[in-house]
Formats: sequence, structure tokens, C-alpha cells
Amino acid sequence: MNSATLQAKFERIRSNKVFELFVISIIIFSALMVGAKTYNISESVSRVVIFLDWFITIFFMFEITIRFLGEKHKKDFFKRAWNIFDTVIVTVSLIPIEDSELAIIGRLIRIFRVLRMVSIIPELRMLLNSLLKALPRLGYVVLLMFIIFYIYAAVGATFFSEINPSLWGDIARSLLTLFRVMTFEDWTDVMYETMTVYGFSWAYYLTFIFFTAFAFLNMIIGIVVNVLEEEHREQNREDGEPTLQELQKELWEIKALLKERHSQQ
Amino acid sequence: MNSATLQAKFERIRSNKVFELFVISIIIFSALMVGAKTYNISESVSRVVIFLDWFITIFFMFEITIRFLGEKHKKDFFKRAWNIFDTVIVTVSLIPIEDSELAIIGRLIRIFRVLRMVSIIPELRMLLNSLLKALPRLGYVVLLMFIIFYIYAAVGATFFSEINPSLWGDIARSLLTLFRVMTFEDWTDVMYETMTVYGFSWAYYLTFIFFTAFAFLNMIIGIVVNVLEEEHREQNREDGEPTLQELQKELWEIKALLKERHSQQ
Amino acid sequence: MNSATLQAKFERIRSNKVFELFVISIIIFSALMVGAKTYNISESVSRVVIFLDWFITIFFMFEITIRFLGEKHKKDFFKRAWNIFDTVIVTVSLIPIEDSELAIIGRLIRIFRVLRMVSIIPELRMLLNSLLKALPRLGYVVLLMFIIFYIYAAVGATFFSEINPSLWGDIARSLLTLFRVMTFEDWTDVMYETMTVYGFSWAYYLTFIFFTAFAFLNMIIGIVVNVLEEEHREQNREDGEPTLQELQKELWEIKALLKERHSQQ
Amino acid sequence: MNSATLQAKFERIRSNKVFELFVISIIIFSALMVGAKTYNISESVSRVVIFLDWFITIFFMFEITIRFLGEKHKKDFFKRAWNIFDTVIVTVSLIPIEDSELAIIGRLIRIFRVLRMVSIIPELRMLLNSLLKALPRLGYVVLLMFIIFYIYAAVGATFFSEINPSLWGDIARSLLTLFRVMTFEDWTDVMYETMTVYGFSWAYYLTFIFFTAFAFLNMIIGIVVNVLEEEHREQNREDGEPTLQELQKELWEIKALLKERHSQQ
Repeated sequence: MNSATLQAKFERIRSNKVFELFVISIIIFSALMVGAKTYNISESVSRVVIFLDWFITIFFMFEITIRFLGEKHKKDFFKRAWNIFDTVIVTVSLIPIEDSELAIIGRLIRIFRVLRMVSIIPELRMLLNSLLKALPRLGYVVLLMFIIFYIYAAVGATFFSEINPSLWGDIARSLLTLFRVMTFEDWTDVMYETMTVYGFSWAYYLTFIFFTAFAFLNMIIGIVVNVLEEEHREQNREDGEPTLQELQKELWEIKALLKERHSQQ
Repeated sequence: MNSATLQAKFERIRSNKVFELFVISIIIFSALMVGAKTYNISESVSRVVIFLDWFITIFFMFEITIRFLGEKHKKDFFKRAWNIFDTVIVTVSLIPIEDSELAIIGRLIRIFRVLRMVSIIPELRMLLNSLLKALPRLGYVVLLMFIIFYIYAAVGATFFSEINPSLWGDIARSLLTLFRVMTFEDWTDVMYETMTVYGFSWAYYLTFIFFTAFAFLNMIIGIVVNVLEEEHREQNREDGEPTLQELQKELWEIKALLKERHSQQ
Repeated sequence: MNSATLQAKFERIRSNKVFELFVISIIIFSALMVGAKTYNISESVSRVVIFLDWFITIFFMFEITIRFLGEKHKKDFFKRAWNIFDTVIVTVSLIPIEDSELAIIGRLIRIFRVLRMVSIIPELRMLLNSLLKALPRLGYVVLLMFIIFYIYAAVGATFFSEINPSLWGDIARSLLTLFRVMTFEDWTDVMYETMTVYGFSWAYYLTFIFFTAFAFLNMIIGIVVNVLEEEHREQNREDGEPTLQELQKELWEIKALLKERHSQQ
Repeated sequence: MNSATLQAKFERIRSNKVFELFVISIIIFSALMVGAKTYNISESVSRVVIFLDWFITIFFMFEITIRFLGEKHKKDFFKRAWNIFDTVIVTVSLIPIEDSELAIIGRLIRIFRVLRMVSIIPELRMLLNSLLKALPRLGYVVLLMFIIFYIYAAVGATFFSEINPSLWGDIARSLLTLFRVMTFEDWTDVMYETMTVYGFSWAYYLTFIFFTAFAFLNMIIGIVVNVLEEEHREQNREDGEPTLQELQKELWEIKALLKERHSQQ
């Protein structure tokens, strides 16, 4: 039995529906384990949990090995970001950690195993990719919003830092406070406090809310318009719908035919 | 008088406008009764309420019997979900309940009778159906949001459970707390509390808010785009508007006609 | 000088730009007066205010008289709702009120004079009309939302009335509390209170939020789609853009012409 | 070397990519300085900061001089608003201020230097312009919303001023309180307070919320529709897509050609 047939065999396993469902159910099981560990559990249950945890880790190792062996060109395996993510997550959770500091990393890694759901289910992967693809489109609006935030935070830290240092003490705190104001979370408490010293500071908050709300609104409208345009174009292409330009071309051809005959007569 | 003519007679009653309006007004009356019972009412009024309640129950029984007898094929009656809902609601409210435990179920059943409004008015039925039909479309986005929630809840329960057990004690509480953060309800109080221990925990809340807001936004945009596309296509079909493809076909036929004559000459 | 020429003269005044601007500035002045009266003002200023108030009232009376006399068919004047509104507002503010009870009505009438801005500026009138025209379109969605609210309020008043009577005492209070929950205003305080008695009451709040948010979202999407469709159709008509159906008709005519000649030859 | 060649030389510097990146990095550096100054800094660091501040100011002066000299027609330089903004910001920060009152203006000017980012990066400039261009479009809706606010504020100041003078004392405070109610910020606290005196004042808040939410919604929908229409038209023009009207014209020409020959035969 040569390696090519072995590879083909693993590829068959990998694309097997039953195998896929089994992997998904193990991931869901590992997610439930993560949840269970947040409750106070007795010593005996805890021991079962540790055992199950090892079982999951080893299962994931086998699963990824199958995926790797099922790959025709081994190099392509690591070209996909999700495969690297899977491998790292599983490899790190294989390392036995005793140290309390590192134990937290071990727990985090086990939590992030839930993300394997995204790497397994293609629909989720596509959804996340499309979300990430939409991000750069927002680039300049986000930059503009950050400039607005930064200027207001600098002004706030300059004038209000002595009124309430925990809210306006420095520019980092001011940025956090402004984010809070943007979410309308108890923003009037923040405002009334500064209004006792600067009577006109309501103008500061109201203009900030208007600017951010307006920029935010424009961002959303920008996305909606972009998505609609793209969908529309794709739709037409899929339906085999001709463009108006193509129809115009047809009309020109008909006219040419008519004129040609005209001159012939 | 045979059963066929009887059925036809009941069908006429059923589709009678006056009968329909009378049923709707009885449902509104039963809704008002439900509301009235939440006020402190004197004994004598209470006795009237109990009497009226029986009257409503018996009226609904007669009404559903008429609907059933007016049906041509008796089996079809139970094929419609709303008919089953109506029958169950009325049947259960017929059972006399003395037990205090079951009395609550009796009260709930009387409250749910208000939903009969939806089963009677076709426009509301259609509206609810279209809402329910839109739900599965959201499937994967909801799954992705749940994964984000679950991971953040697991991280929260791991790190913050000792800071405030009532908010972060276990994964269920953490999920509820995160839902609260997503609605911006006093989220800064939750944040400032954990920031006293973990100074950088603001990153946890800010990334969570960004992720959920972004996923939520995409969900909404997705629905808007879908609905717009569907409406657009339906609109064109209703208006008898031809598609661009149909126009293209016409143009091809004209060209064929012209060329044919060309070759004839 | 007969009445027809007088009417024409008044009509000229009415449609005079300077007259219009003067009326608008008097309305703005009356709005500022309304605002000024909310401050503590000295006796002497108060006397000036009362004098100015009479001046405004009498000016408005003259203005409406001019409008009325400028109307060709006197009956048409009261066919427009805004004219009736103007007349009522001015007439009522002419009645001298001493009684403290009625004095409040007098103050309210003076406040509502600000609304005359809408009756004077045609763009605002059109905007308000278009807003009101959009309302019935929402009819059934609002009815469905009210049914959801009513059922949840009845359930809330049944189960939670003893936990906090001021929030859940009867169905009216429950409806107000649920509206508060829908706006996310301290909704967790309401929830945590009932969760001490009914541990699973979070399901009540979460399902309520999901239902109302979902219905609300669909309402908005419905409006957006409707408005877009309408605008699109109107746009095409204004631009003189032919519909695709009209183009199809043209094509059929061309084909008929071609075939006709075919048979001639 | 005449002035024309000098001008050309400066223009080359101005449009040099490296020069531009250097300017942007100095602006970012000045923004970081603004942030750093909000922290408590030691005397020695403070002296460095003052030195760096002078360096930035002088650099900006040179940069603007280069831009000015690089301009072909010196008058055109001050026709662009951003150039004026840049010049004012830099000129004012050149004035040495000792007075504590004016020192605040000096600090503000240094903060506003962050806005130079917008004046340098063309994409941000365009984005801000498009935001500002969208504002007048909202004119009448904003006016209508202000009228609603003003009337409710006048009513609030009339009835509730004695219940809570700090919230409803005069019309300015009432406007601020109503803005707070519109953002749903602790609006129930405001409502419950007035409900102790006027039991039906919930109607005041609920109608206000409905009116403003409705007007706000219509404003957003209006913008979305406008933007979509504009984008659509621009898109078609860019793509070289013909309008339906142009296609109709073509069809008429074909028909004319066909009929003409008809009459010839």
C-alpha cells in the first residue's frame, strides 16, 4: 500500500459526513465541558472532567492528523489559516501545565477550542470571512471617528481632570468615558458632574453625541449601500440577466442591419 | 336535510362578516376581562367575572364547532396549526380547576386566548407567518453570535467569578451578564468592578461590544438586502414587467427575422 | 369698490413674501415669549410680557382675518385642517381667563401657537403630512406588538404583582414597565428583583426583548422597503423613464412591422 | 533662478510622497504629545515636551510656507478652507502665551492640530465634506424635531418646574432633560418623579418618545433612500450603462427606419 492510496483513504474519511458530524458533536461536548467547569463541582466529578478533557485533546490530535494525511500536497495544509489555528490550539493543549500562571493559559486554550466549530462548519467560516472582508471598507470612517474621539478626549482631560480624576484623569480614561457617553450609559451623571463647574459643558457632550451618531449613521448607510450594490450586480450575473449596455449593443446591430440593406436597395 | 347542506350552511355562517366581527369583539372583551382581573376587585364583581368567563368559554366552544362543521373535509381542519391552537386553548379552559397549582395554568390559558385575535384576523396571521419565515434565514448568524457569547462567557466565568459571583458565578450567569452588557444596561458598573482587579478588562468589554454590534449590524443588513431583493423580484412579476432577459430574447427574434429576409433577397 | 376686488387685494397680501416673513418672525417671537415665561421674571418685565402677549394675539387675529378674506370661496377656508387649527388657537387665546384652573389652558394654548410655524411653512406641513400618511401603513404591526405587550403584561401582573406592586400591580403598570424594559432602561433591576422569587423569570424578559426587537426590526425594514419602492417608481415617472413593459411593447410593434412586410413580399 | 522655477520646485516637494508621510508622522507625533501632556509628568520630561512642542510648531510653519510657495496663483491658496484652517492653527500656536487664561486657548490650539490629519489626508477630507454636504438635506426634519422639542419643553417647564427645578426649572433645562429622555438615559426616574404629582404624565413621555423616534426614523430612512438613489444614478453613469430612455430612443429610430422603407416601396 503506497502513500498515495493512504492519502486517498484519509481524504475519504475526512470528507465523510458521519466523521464530520462526530467531530462537531465532540466540539459541542468540549464546549459543554468548558461550561461545566465554571460551576462548583465535587472532587470525583472533577477527576472525570480531567479524564474527558484528555480524551478530547487526543481525539482532536487524531482528527487533525487525519486531515493532514488526507491532504494531497502537505504544504497546502498550512496555507489555510484555520488549519494553523486548529493545530496550534490542539498542540498547546497537549502540553501538561502545572504552574498556576500557565494554568490560566491552559484554560483559555480549552475555551478557544469552541472556535473550532467555525473552522469545521464551512457556512460559519464563510460568514466570518465576509465579516472580516467588510472591515477594511470601514477604514477611513473608523479613523475619522477616532480623531473625533481623540480631540474630545484631549479637551476632556484638559478641563475635567480635576473634577473627577477617575473619569477624566488622563487621555486613556477620557477615551473610555467618551465611549461610555456614546453608548448613552449614565451619560447624564457624567455631564451633571462637570456642569457644576463648567455651566456650558452640556455643549461638549451634545456636540460629541451628534458628531459620533452622525458619523456612525453614515458608516452604516455606507455599508448598506455597498452591500446592496454588490448583491445587485452579483444577482444579475447569476440570473444570466443581460446588462442594459448589452441590450443597447443588440439594438445597434439591428440598426446596422437595417441601414446596410437600405444602401443595398 | 342531509349533512352536505348542513355543512354548506355552517360554512356560510363562518364566512359571514357579522359573525366574524362578533367573534373579534368577544375576543377583545375576553382580553379586557383578563386585564380587569389584575386589579383588586370586590367579591360581587368577581362573581360576575367568573360568570362572564364561562360565557366566553362556551361561546368559543360553539364558534369552533361551527368552524369544524363548516369544513368540507373534516381532516383538513386539523392541518392548519391555528385551528389546533384554538381547539386546545378552548378545550383546556373548559376543564374546571380547583387546585391552586393548576389554577395558574387556567389563568395562563385565559391570557393566551388573546392570541386568538391572530388566528381570526388573516392579516395578523400572515404577518406572524412572514416573521417566523424570516427566522431560519438568520440561523448561522445567530449560531456565530452564540459562539462569541459562549467564549466570552467562559472567559468571564473563569476570571471574574470571584470578583462578583452573582454576575459571573457560572457560565449561565455570565451569559445573562453579557446580554446585559450588549443592551448597554449599566455596563460600565460591571466593567469598573472588574477593572479594580484586572486593569485591562476594559479590552474584554470593548471587544465584546464591537464583535456583537458588528455581527448584529451584519445580520440586519443581511435581512434588509434579502427582503429588498425578494420584494423587487415579486414586484416585477406582479406588475407584469418583463425581465431584461425576455427583452433580449425579443431582440434576438427581430435580428433573426431581419437576417432571414436578407438571405431571401 | 366691490367685494371681489377686496378679496383679490387680500389674496395679494396673503401671498406676499414680506408679509409671510413678518408672520413667521412674529411666531418665532411668540415662541421666545413662551420660553421667557418659564424663567423667574420681575413684576415689571411680567407686565411687558402680558402686553406683548396681547399684541401677538391681536396680530394673529388680523392675520387670520386677512387669510379668510383673501379666500375666494369662504367655505374652502375651513376645509383645510390647518386653518381650523389656527382659528381655534387664536380664538381661544382671545378669551380673557382669570380662573387659575383655566389659566393653565390659556398657557397651553400660547405654547401650541408655536405649532403655527408648521401651518405657515409649506415644507413643514408637507413633511408632517408625509409622516402621518406613513402611520396607517404600520397598522397591523402595531396591533401585533400591542398583543405581544398585552399578553406579557397580563402574565407579569399575574405572577409578579406581589413582588413589586408599583411595577406590576395591575395591567396598566405592567404595560408601562414592559415599555421601560423595551427601552432597556434599568431593565436588569426589574429582572433581578423577580428572579429572587422566580429563578427562571429571565426567560420572560429575554423572550419579550427578542419578540419586540424582532417585530420592531421588521416594522422598520417594512417601511424602508415601502419607501424605496415608492421613490423608485416616482423617480422613473418624473425622469420620463419608460418602464420595461413599454419597451417590450415597442419591440412587439417592430416585430409586427417586420412580419407584415414579410407577408407583403 | 526665477520665481516660476522656485514655485515649481516647491510644488514638487509638496506632492512628494516621502514629504507627505513625514508630515503625517509629525502630526501623529504631535497628537501623542497632546495625549502625553494629560498624564502627570516630571519637570524634566515637561521641559522636553515644551522643546518638542516648539519644534512641531516651527516644522508646521515651514511646511505651510512650502505649500504656499508651491502654489501657482497665491490667491488660490486661501480659497481652500482647509489651508486657512492650517494657517490659523499654526499662526496662533506661534504666539507665546504666559497668561493663564490664554494658556488654555494655547492648549486647545495644540489639540486642534490633530485635525490637520484631516486636512492632509485627501480621503478624510472627502469623507468629512460628504458628511457636511448631507447636513442641509436634513434641514426641515431637524426644524420639525426642534419644534416638537420646544413645545414639550415649554409644557414640561410649565407643569413640572416645581416638582424638580434642576430638571424642569426653565425651558433650557427642560430641553436638556428631554434630550436625556430621548436617549432613554434614566428616563423612568424622571417620569416616576412627575407621576407622583401628575398621575397621567406617562402620556407626556410616551407621546414624546413616539414622536421623536418616529421623526428620527423618517430622517434616517430619508437619508438612506437619498444616498441609494444618488449612488444608483452615479453607478450607471460610471459603468457607461445607458438609461431606459436612451434605449427607447434607439427603438424609435429603428421603427422610423422600418416605416421609411415601407413608404419607399
